[in-house]
Amino acid sequence: MHSSLLIHGSSLPSIPWEERPEGDSSVLWRYSQNPVIGRDAAADTNSIFNSAVVPFRDGFAGVFRCDDTCRRMNIRVGFSKDGISWRIADSPIDFIKASLDIPDSEYKYDPRVVFVEDRYWIVWCNGYHGASIGMGYTFDFETFQQIENPLMPYNRNGVLFPRKIGNNYALLSRPSDSGHTPFGDIFYSESPDMTYWGKHRHVMSPLGSQSLWQSTKIGAGPAPIETKEGWLLFYHGVLNSCNGFVYSFSAALLDLDQPWKVIARARPYLISPQKTYECVGDVPNVAFPCAALTDSDTDRVAVYYGCADTSTGLVFGRIGEIIDFVKQNNAIG
Amino acid sequence: MHSSLLIHGSSLPSIPWEERPEGDSSVLWRYSQNPVIGRDAAADTNSIFNSAVVPFRDGFAGVFRCDDTCRRMNIRVGFSKDGISWRIADSPIDFIKASLDIPDSEYKYDPRVVFVEDRYWIVWCNGYHGASIGMGYTFDFETFQQIENPLMPYNRNGVLFPRKIGNNYALLSRPSDSGHTPFGDIFYSESPDMTYWGKHRHVMSPLGSQSLWQSTKIGAGPAPIETKEGWLLFYHGVLNSCNGFVYSFSAALLDLDQPWKVIARARPYLISPQKTYECVGDVPNVAFPCAALTDSDTDRVAVYYGCADTSTGLVFGRIGEIIDFVKQNNAIG
Amino acid sequence: MHSSLLIHGSSLPSIPWEERPEGDSSVLWRYSQNPVIGRDAAADTNSIFNSAVVPFRDGFAGVFRCDDTCRRMNIRVGFSKDGISWRIADSPIDFIKASLDIPDSEYKYDPRVVFVEDRYWIVWCNGYHGASIGMGYTFDFETFQQIENPLMPYNRNGVLFPRKIGNNYALLSRPSDSGHTPFGDIFYSESPDMTYWGKHRHVMSPLGSQSLWQSTKIGAGPAPIETKEGWLLFYHGVLNSCNGFVYSFSAALLDLDQPWKVIARARPYLISPQKTYECVGDVPNVAFPCAALTDSDTDRVAVYYGCADTSTGLVFGRIGEIIDFVKQNNAIG
Amino acid sequence: MHSSLLIHGSSLPSIPWEERPEGDSSVLWRYSQNPVIGRDAAADTNSIFNSAVVPFRDGFAGVFRCDDTCRRMNIRVGFSKDGISWRIADSPIDFIKASLDIPDSEYKYDPRVVFVEDRYWIVWCNGYHGASIGMGYTFDFETFQQIENPLMPYNRNGVLFPRKIGNNYALLSRPSDSGHTPFGDIFYSESPDMTYWGKHRHVMSPLGSQSLWQSTKIGAGPAPIETKEGWLLFYHGVLNSCNGFVYSFSAALLDLDQPWKVIARARPYLISPQKTYECVGDVPNVAFPCAALTDSDTDRVAVYYGCADTSTGLVFGRIGEIIDFVKQNNAIG
Amino acid sequence: MHSSLLIHGSSLPSIPWEERPEGDSSVLWRYSQNPVIGRDAAADTNSIFNSAVVPFRDGFAGVFRCDDTCRRMNIRVGFSKDGISWRIADSPIDFIKASLDIPDSEYKYDPRVVFVEDRYWIVWCNGYHGASIGMGYTFDFETFQQIENPLMPYNRNGVLFPRKIGNNYALLSRPSDSGHTPFGDIFYSESPDMTYWGKHRHVMSPLGSQSLWQSTKIGAGPAPIETKEGWLLFYHGVLNSCNGFVYSFSAALLDLDQPWKVIARARPYLISPQKTYECVGDVPNVAFPCAALTDSDTDRVAVYYGCADTSTGLVFGRIGEIIDFVKQNNAIG
Amino acid sequence: MHSSLLIHGSSLPSIPWEERPEGDSSVLWRYSQNPVIGRDAAADTNSIFNSAVVPFRDGFAGVFRCDDTCRRMNIRVGFSKDGISWRIADSPIDFIKASLDIPDSEYKYDPRVVFVEDRYWIVWCNGYHGASIGMGYTFDFETFQQIENPLMPYNRNGVLFPRKIGNNYALLSRPSDSGHTPFGDIFYSESPDMTYWGKHRHVMSPLGSQSLWQSTKIGAGPAPIETKEGWLLFYHGVLNSCNGFVYSFSAALLDLDQPWKVIARARPYLISPQKTYECVGDVPNVAFPCAALTDSDTDRVAVYYGCADTSTGLVFGRIGEIIDFVKQNNAIG
Repeated sequence: MHSSLLIHGSSLPSIPWEERPEGDSSVLWRYSQNPVIGRDAAADTNSIFNSAVVPFRDGFAGVFRCDDTCRRMNIRVGFSKDGISWRIADSPIDFIKASLDIPDSEYKYDPRVVFVEDRYWIVWCNGYHGASIGMGYTFDFETFQQIENPLMPYNRNGVLFPRKIGNNYALLSRPSDSGHTPFGDIFYSESPDMTYWGKHRHVMSPLGSQSLWQSTKIGAGPAPIETKEGWLLFYHGVLNSCNGFVYSFSAALLDLDQPWKVIARARPYLISPQKTYECVGDVPNVAFPCAALTDSDTDRVAVYYGCADTSTGLVFGRIGEIIDFVKQNNAIG
Repeated sequence: MHSSLLIHGSSLPSIPWEERPEGDSSVLWRYSQNPVIGRDAAADTNSIFNSAVVPFRDGFAGVFRCDDTCRRMNIRVGFSKDGISWRIADSPIDFIKASLDIPDSEYKYDPRVVFVEDRYWIVWCNGYHGASIGMGYTFDFETFQQIENPLMPYNRNGVLFPRKIGNNYALLSRPSDSGHTPFGDIFYSESPDMTYWGKHRHVMSPLGSQSLWQSTKIGAGPAPIETKEGWLLFYHGVLNSCNGFVYSFSAALLDLDQPWKVIARARPYLISPQKTYECVGDVPNVAFPCAALTDSDTDRVAVYYGCADTSTGLVFGRIGEIIDFVKQNNAIG
Repeated sequence: MHSSLLIHGSSLPSIPWEERPEGDSSVLWRYSQNPVIGRDAAADTNSIFNSAVVPFRDGFAGVFRCDDTCRRMNIRVGFSKDGISWRIADSPIDFIKASLDIPDSEYKYDPRVVFVEDRYWIVWCNGYHGASIGMGYTFDFETFQQIENPLMPYNRNGVLFPRKIGNNYALLSRPSDSGHTPFGDIFYSESPDMTYWGKHRHVMSPLGSQSLWQSTKIGAGPAPIETKEGWLLFYHGVLNSCNGFVYSFSAALLDLDQPWKVIARARPYLISPQKTYECVGDVPNVAFPCAALTDSDTDRVAVYYGCADTSTGLVFGRIGEIIDFVKQNNAIG
Repeated sequence: MHSSLLIHGSSLPSIPWEERPEGDSSVLWRYSQNPVIGRDAAADTNSIFNSAVVPFRDGFAGVFRCDDTCRRMNIRVGFSKDGISWRIADSPIDFIKASLDIPDSEYKYDPRVVFVEDRYWIVWCNGYHGASIGMGYTFDFETFQQIENPLMPYNRNGVLFPRKIGNNYALLSRPSDSGHTPFGDIFYSESPDMTYWGKHRHVMSPLGSQSLWQSTKIGAGPAPIETKEGWLLFYHGVLNSCNGFVYSFSAALLDLDQPWKVIARARPYLISPQKTYECVGDVPNVAFPCAALTDSDTDRVAVYYGCADTSTGLVFGRIGEIIDFVKQNNAIG
Repeated sequence: MHSSLLIHGSSLPSIPWEERPEGDSSVLWRYSQNPVIGRDAAADTNSIFNSAVVPFRDGFAGVFRCDDTCRRMNIRVGFSKDGISWRIADSPIDFIKASLDIPDSEYKYDPRVVFVEDRYWIVWCNGYHGASIGMGYTFDFETFQQIENPLMPYNRNGVLFPRKIGNNYALLSRPSDSGHTPFGDIFYSESPDMTYWGKHRHVMSPLGSQSLWQSTKIGAGPAPIETKEGWLLFYHGVLNSCNGFVYSFSAALLDLDQPWKVIARARPYLISPQKTYECVGDVPNVAFPCAALTDSDTDRVAVYYGCADTSTGLVFGRIGEIIDFVKQNNAIG
Repeated sequence: MHSSLLIHGSSLPSIPWEERPEGDSSVLWRYSQNPVIGRDAAADTNSIFNSAVVPFRDGFAGVFRCDDTCRRMNIRVGFSKDGISWRIADSPIDFIKASLDIPDSEYKYDPRVVFVEDRYWIVWCNGYHGASIGMGYTFDFETFQQIENPLMPYNRNGVLFPRKIGNNYALLSRPSDSGHTPFGDIFYSESPDMTYWGKHRHVMSPLGSQSLWQSTKIGAGPAPIETKEGWLLFYHGVLNSCNGFVYSFSAALLDLDQPWKVIARARPYLISPQKTYECVGDVPNVAFPCAALTDSDTDRVAVYYGCADTSTGLVFGRIGEIIDFVKQNNAIG
């Protein structure tokens, strides 16, 4: 890795990849074999989506939202050599709790996985008197520890930064209500120890009529990607149509040292639900990103996203082009 | 018929049937030519769904929800040799009323047909100051009598048992409100004479987070099927997604003598809307069963169900396997 | 009693009574010492209202809605020599159930008491999977029997007629939803045996802009009073203001033999909440009648009504004048 | 043009056209290559729908709702030789305002274009303190003038008549609320000068249970077509299903001199969303007509309509057959 | 009248009046005998409020909202020598319509009366497919003419200016929805002829957290009062508490020539409901002004306002002090 | 102070006090001169309520919710010799912020004041992207410091414990939504440094039908009072009537070392709104406690509570009797 690279991260030559199809000028392009993970790719699943993937040893590991055929929401571990073909566990992750006082959860969903310092942190939506942020970690994707919920209910879409900011751990989240929540901003919080959280800062609100796909609520997607230009954040936005919520996603750049300051934010979406597997399913019209793999040597990125709350899709792009897109279509200032 | 048979019912060698596709381990499997009845299979129809089919003479008869191209909801009679190919009437059933005081209905929908003792009873959702249960009968599917509404508004999904329970007729129903009703339990009522009803008993509620597909409301589907193990009841359940209601279905076992007592109830669904004809239509994401044919000699069952409030689908299974599924995935106790 | 009397009922010389104040031309006039029963007239009560009073032996008995200081809703028995001064029990009525299957109730409220044939029937709102009608009886106001709920949930404001209609018991009720119900019509139902009910008939709907005090919902008040001109029914109506529901009441005349046919119905209210004890309390702006005493010899009537869901008021009138009022202000036809 | 012609309009031999497919008895039939305008037929569009097309010079011009990839709603100009293949501008129309006081709009959508007297008028939904009607004109589809909003907020679906009625300009519109509006009637208004509007008249309401596809709200579609039998108005109707709004359309006949008087109105729909491109998209289940081309010599009509708020469809028919359909299925009287 | 006077209006030495009580520093002070018009001050009334009073001949005339004991809303004429003691008609005003096409109204409420040029104009809320503005006039308060509704539904709180602005009649109004409307801004419209209206301009919105009593909706009260400093407008504002709407009122100054431009607007209320007759009644917590009398010689003003939607109150003040209050507590800029 | 005392606190011989009236058996009794602080007891106030009082030097200090005549919600300081007669500041407290990043607040309301270790902490509801908890402190009630918001939006009713629990500061709060919040539980959180908060624990939920006055939501009132039997917590509860929310209050006992464990909790209320000053005002039917003074020598307590969101009331009681009441009416277990 040398200093001229755009991504402040590791090499990942084995990143799942397809080149942009000829004649296609999209900034992000879809994997030709989407959905990459079908709804029944594991035992007894109704759907597999909102998938959190990271490089692990000589391949990849992931934590997956698998609703079973009771439509119970839980998260399972999975492994892959190539990021495309996955072996997903037959049953949910069984977390070990450091203390009996750590809140139980009726359900778990929408995980994110982020490697910080020495371990893989898992953040998810945890049922604790309503939607809350749950938090745990693993070193090996075999044994999983659950720690304290970092924040008060009601909250969803918690995502850690991949390194400390000014000596503190840093978390994005989205306060919500106890239902389908027709509003939602992204906030930033800090912690010296992953247990006590404070210095809550407002980051971004939905936009008004200048960008309707993100006019109802927004939420962080994959962990922010550190680049020379700032933290690159993929985030989803929601439009409230007369036939329900439509989830699309795009990207923003946050200040490296004060990430609650938005440097630039794309007004257009990068991906909106347009393919059959994004439009038709348990919840029509959802494209919801949860994980991004990057290869710093080649500037490539692969984003996993939930499709219609039913299966998992994959899109590809290049970080430099995405940053250019964000800056050229900036909604800020 | 000999005593070792599981189903307490008649032989029906002509039951519509396809064997389970190879490699498919589903308990219920879909008919390969679904939808078995298309939306325009009769004159002037917008949609044909939620269809109530029974054996009749040397073939089958049925009562069908046919919304016309005004989207007016009404029910029509139809006939078939094989249960697959149907001749459906050009206009709604014209009921004869025993008395002028019997409430008129603005509309009729979601019929069930059940043979009890000497005649075919039809139960439907009847517009009488809001959603109510309507009731009538026929001996020959030519002349139809309408009797008193059995219950007060607001109620939907009324289904008779195929025989008296302890000398009384027995009915399942689901009290509702005057709109799209975001709640709903199944109740049991009795009558000595099909006119006066009482001894109302609670049967089942929606389940909470342990089975989300049935977390918002539930309702009886086809008439309960008498088996050695209890009444086998297919019932639908509703999940309230941010994009509206999703209707799936599964099964439960009720006590033969006190059917308000639930012996076992499946936690997973048997069928959820996953095929295009179930996901796309006038109301996306609906699989809504209304009739079941059984052959006691061979333990086979064929279930007719509404697809996306647009067309009619057919699924096949074996009663023994379904009962095993219910007992092995029991949500009770 | 001679045939020229207007009320088909008994003499009640001891009826509570005050003459109409001089200069007052109201059809009903308020008792000068209202509220006749204060909110703390019994042990541990938050409020005593919606009171059901009948003549009993040489005085009066009653069943009273007494919310305790947990605001738990239940009903208690009480006795009075003069209908004005009451001894109300320290705890709720303890009903004996004929069968363990008779539904338990989480709460009881808004009782009516009606003498039919040989006993005093009590009808109330019973918590059984939501608001339902509860039913019981007593011979002596010491021992109370509870029988089957007559109707399916959701229903409120059940009131019996004081005699059989054409060999059947007869009941008015108001189907509702599971909440504060922004709609509501009065229906009529019959039973040969007080257990099985049927022949449900629509009686009256709320009125539109021609009578706004009864534009949102209506419900039967005291048991209908048999008169030469028909059943005189006091009923409440609700207006939905921007600051909540306003409950007033008036009267209608129903056909003696077919009580679902409305002969006449007053367009104006008789009583609307205007006094402080009707406007201020646990639920502001409520006047809700539940019982009427009549003296056929003198054509007098005394109506007990709940005030602001807090205390009990009393108004007086003469049946002949009330019938004239209903006919002269008739909203029908 | 001779007097026996049904349509009071011009010849348009170049009208886009396909004959009715053999065996198809529909009054309107779909273009075999639908959607005629795809969602990405112009630069940077998320969707192109609700398109307003008129004959212009030797071909056609149009104003198109083009939501960009921010889902910002705006309108663009486009041109075509054949009405099938379109060149649509890369950016929204830039209106010149006669006065700085003319209200700015945050967005523009759902345009209609009508030639009256000497120019092409454009009417659209204009964001001015909520949904309002915007108004402008062009002579050449190059320069566009915006004038005063004709009506107060909140209003949508404004459509001009193609000639003055009794010396005044005439406009249909649909008052609404500030959200997704669960109600809506069509009204008629007049103006001597296109600035001051009055004489507002009610035209049509949604129908009740006799025609559910138009039971929630209705709105004018293309400009009314003058015929010997009256103004032929295509209009959309909405059914409120438990999964959201469903938009279909049909037609009515209005009096030539007093267009607020409805001569006949079809109870059934002509087109409801049944094809994949009508059922699947940004807003599932929408068929929303905005423009009609007619050829008076041959009685042909081509209707452009929005599909699933995503793309533009085209249907064909004959005015005489449509009028017969309206009269034979008349919901009036 | 000489040029140094603040009010551009007539002398009115007979204005109802009480001096400010000693020790009271309120800008407006209440009449000591409030309510000046009780709820039963006319025949068959439930309530008399939102009263529109003007000088007439040697005394005063007025148009009064009188809800009858059906709670039907209508308006009646009344006369007074002193503005305190009123004779109010026994029945509603019977308007003569210039044309049969002028919309009928199911009800009328909340009148304002304004003398412009040669006659007394009455503006009210008129039931025409929901809340609309109704308009009529009288020369003598004996014969009343009704003209066209000036604006489209839904709208309330229409108030005319007392003279033309730049050759046009001028009207304030508040677009609303079809229910209890949880939002509402004041708009300005013009007409050359009282029939055609246009040039609609936004005047004022509710304020946010800086002035909560006017945070939900606002509406014009009495006709604006012309002063040297601008049009003085009393207007009501609404706070949406967890127990319903609270109506208070204050004042603003509008530009004399361009009245949609707000010169100053008081942040605090002048009157909020605090007295029993304002807090307790058919709608608790309402103070709603509809008329103001001024005496230009002495700078005095008397404002009539509805109290709890039940009776009419009167407050007094001095225009100069009110203008000072508005300017010193200005929420603008 | 000797070990037999029930209250673990200081002597306060100057506590405001009246003995229980003769014949009154209430556990808490009202001050005979209520409201103790009227709505206009300070300059420019609409209302003074939800008052936070503590002993200070030789008298008392307090922080008061004073809504001004704009109905803007803010908090002011006040002083008193006897706790009865108060001098309240003319303007809101001006907090000094340790950092510019500390969130601004649009408004402040419902303060609590608690002395912990060396200073007086003020906790209030702070407007930061919706209702949030604000936090500050003072040593002298002259200079006030504001620190970080301890928790994420949306939250209300934050109250500190008067001493550290196990080396950490301890806080009760109630997560809410952005509106009038129809739900609400009490939670417990801890902090080592008053900036970073964690270890969030659920304390209590609303009760169901067993105690309706607290069936919709609950929230902590004054700072918990340390006693031999546990922390005595006064808390409010809300009943959702058809005419809005009703706020009453009662008490619970929490474990001294693990205060999220409830030892006992009263089923009945101690005070519900029954007096005119509690039933009539800006928000009818509110009794909302915010502060309690205790005298450990004599076991006396005086509770300040908001009345109808308008004025401040005072009730008196004895800790021993209150604890007995809680234990004898325990809703737990």
